[in-house]
Amino acid sequence: MDTIKKTIERIGAPDQVVRKAAEERQKCLTKPEGSLGALEGLSVRIAGMQGSLTPRAEPGAVFVMAADHGVCVEGVSAYPPEVTAQMVGNFAAGGAAINAIAKAVGARVVIADLGVATELPRDMAVHRRKIAYGTRNMAQLPAMTRVEALRSIASGIEIFEEELAASPFAIAAIGDMGIGNTTAAAALASVFTGRTPAELVGRGTGLDDRALERKISVVERALALHRPAARDPIAVLAAVGGFEIGGMAGAILAAAAHRIPLVVDGYITGAAALLAAALAPVSKEYMIAGHLSGDRGHGFMLSTLGLEPLLNLGMRLGEGTGAALAMGICKAACAVLSSMATFETAGIGGKL
Amino acid sequence: MDTIKKTIERIGAPDQVVRKAAEERQKCLTKPEGSLGALEGLSVRIAGMQGSLTPRAEPGAVFVMAADHGVCVEGVSAYPPEVTAQMVGNFAAGGAAINAIAKAVGARVVIADLGVATELPRDMAVHRRKIAYGTRNMAQLPAMTRVEALRSIASGIEIFEEELAASPFAIAAIGDMGIGNTTAAAALASVFTGRTPAELVGRGTGLDDRALERKISVVERALALHRPAARDPIAVLAAVGGFEIGGMAGAILAAAAHRIPLVVDGYITGAAALLAAALAPVSKEYMIAGHLSGDRGHGFMLSTLGLEPLLNLGMRLGEGTGAALAMGICKAACAVLSSMATFETAGIGGKL
Repeated sequence: MDTIKKTIERIGAPDQVVRKAAEERQKCLTKPEGSLGALEGLSVRIAGMQGSLTPRAEPGAVFVMAADHGVCVEGVSAYPPEVTAQMVGNFAAGGAAINAIAKAVGARVVIADLGVATELPRDMAVHRRKIAYGTRNMAQLPAMTRVEALRSIASGIEIFEEELAASPFAIAAIGDMGIGNTTAAAALASVFTGRTPAELVGRGTGLDDRALERKISVVERALALHRPAARDPIAVLAAVGGFEIGGMAGAILAAAAHRIPLVVDGYITGAAALLAAALAPVSKEYMIAGHLSGDRGHGFMLSTLGLEPLLNLGMRLGEGTGAALAMGICKAACAVLSSMATFETAGIGGKL
Repeated sequence: MDTIKKTIERIGAPDQVVRKAAEERQKCLTKPEGSLGALEGLSVRIAGMQGSLTPRAEPGAVFVMAADHGVCVEGVSAYPPEVTAQMVGNFAAGGAAINAIAKAVGARVVIADLGVATELPRDMAVHRRKIAYGTRNMAQLPAMTRVEALRSIASGIEIFEEELAASPFAIAAIGDMGIGNTTAAAALASVFTGRTPAELVGRGTGLDDRALERKISVVERALALHRPAARDPIAVLAAVGGFEIGGMAGAILAAAAHRIPLVVDGYITGAAALLAAALAPVSKEYMIAGHLSGDRGHGFMLSTLGLEPLLNLGMRLGEGTGAALAMGICKAACAVLSSMATFETAGIGGKL
């Protein structure tokens, strides 16, 4: 689709001149070199992305994208599919974990329906971009058509740009909701990381040993059936993906095109990040890994992306919760570079 | 001293009934059990400390305590002692890392002079509690007298209580400034953790191999000279401590007495926490380990205290920077427990 192609073409590398200048400035700030650890490199990266020596990480926007998954009929989740729509209602009402955490870090929550299986109430404040009423069961059929895959990505781009136009933000995060989506994410991750389903499939929201075995076997069957190849990322999304995963990949591409840092959350968003990186490798330069989630296999995703996580708190909820929490770290990193005094301006004697 | 004794007597255990109720409430919130990882236990701990099912972590106050160290004449630091006073001026002017980070998390910075070697300008907004113009060189003499040790702790308590009375805060953090204070902290830590100086002494703000060897030997000599014993914590502080370390230990005791969660920063504050725990073991219940610092030996301090760090970003600046950053995590943890919907109130179907 035209939207996707144009967005990818607009993505440029971060500003290397500003990045270098930010590195030099870090050395002049009133602290021993390197003493702020990962905050220093983070601030330098964001400076390069934004092309500014006074980078900012507020206000922030968390894009929570929701959709349902036909693969649920295989018994891969501890929760029934109805919970997807119920949780979208919870997001809209402000009662979910992402609402609490985003508020604590001063970010707004943007909700989008990319393919929830039921109609959401008319008065709910949600971006309505339903591609279909959930995907098909990947263990038997392609999860979606190629056109649907393209539409999900384009929708993510459009949602991102509508929000940016409505009320600008300096940093973005992505989060997911979709009962059954750890199965889709594992399948996508297997294609893009080259790891086996057994290495990547985890217990999701709480499967027992037997259900875990079943889930691994479902992913193996789906991959054997469709044989998706990493060189055609759209085909991978169509075969074993999800609408919210396509949408989040679109949001990543849009963020990179607008030079806006994007904080990736956990397992599902990691699959979206792999998809975006496959479509446009330079988009990785605009990704920040919010945290290492408690989900098995997430570490493989991050190492494939070449990203170091900021937090490691054993979180595995999704919704963008780990990413939103990490926005607070980004805010502090930007504040250091943007507002600290230098040895010279503060009149402080340097090292012996 | 009376202040210290009375404060210690006032410290009670966290509220176990509220703690238990908070644990139960966590299970009812609209998310799979345990899916918010360390945030869940953190919110439960803070609920117990504050005795409230709707715990709060804002507003916050970061107590940065400064003092000089006679042991600097042994060549244990990469920076000259004048930098202590210069950095206090930088804190007061708002140009230091702690100012930037505290502002980013919405906490105020409280500065205190417990023993800076020079007179600070009269118009500087600093708590003036100078015990002496720096400690004596612990490698040759006790760092301070027993009376001075007691006065430093009592001063920390008084500073904390003055600030609390002036403008209440829901959470506190401690931070340090004092050229040479990693040497004092290592000596204290050796007594309280039972580890050797070689295991605990690090490069501070950037020592080379030879200087590191010298620093280890200084700590060994000081410990051999004074033979301080953990059963008399005041004697340990007097022999090898620092005025700011005594002051921070006082702030910890005061926080515990007022049932206020206190976020510990890195290496120097870790020594203060060990001292406070030796004086009043139950004070550990009110400590939160903000981060694992990049300083060698900090992990031994945290394991002796029985604390799990929230962050691990390779920070090693001090000033309370890691603790202030972790206040943002505490804020999010409290928001989850205090404001999330339950499965019942949100009308969401539970697990299958």
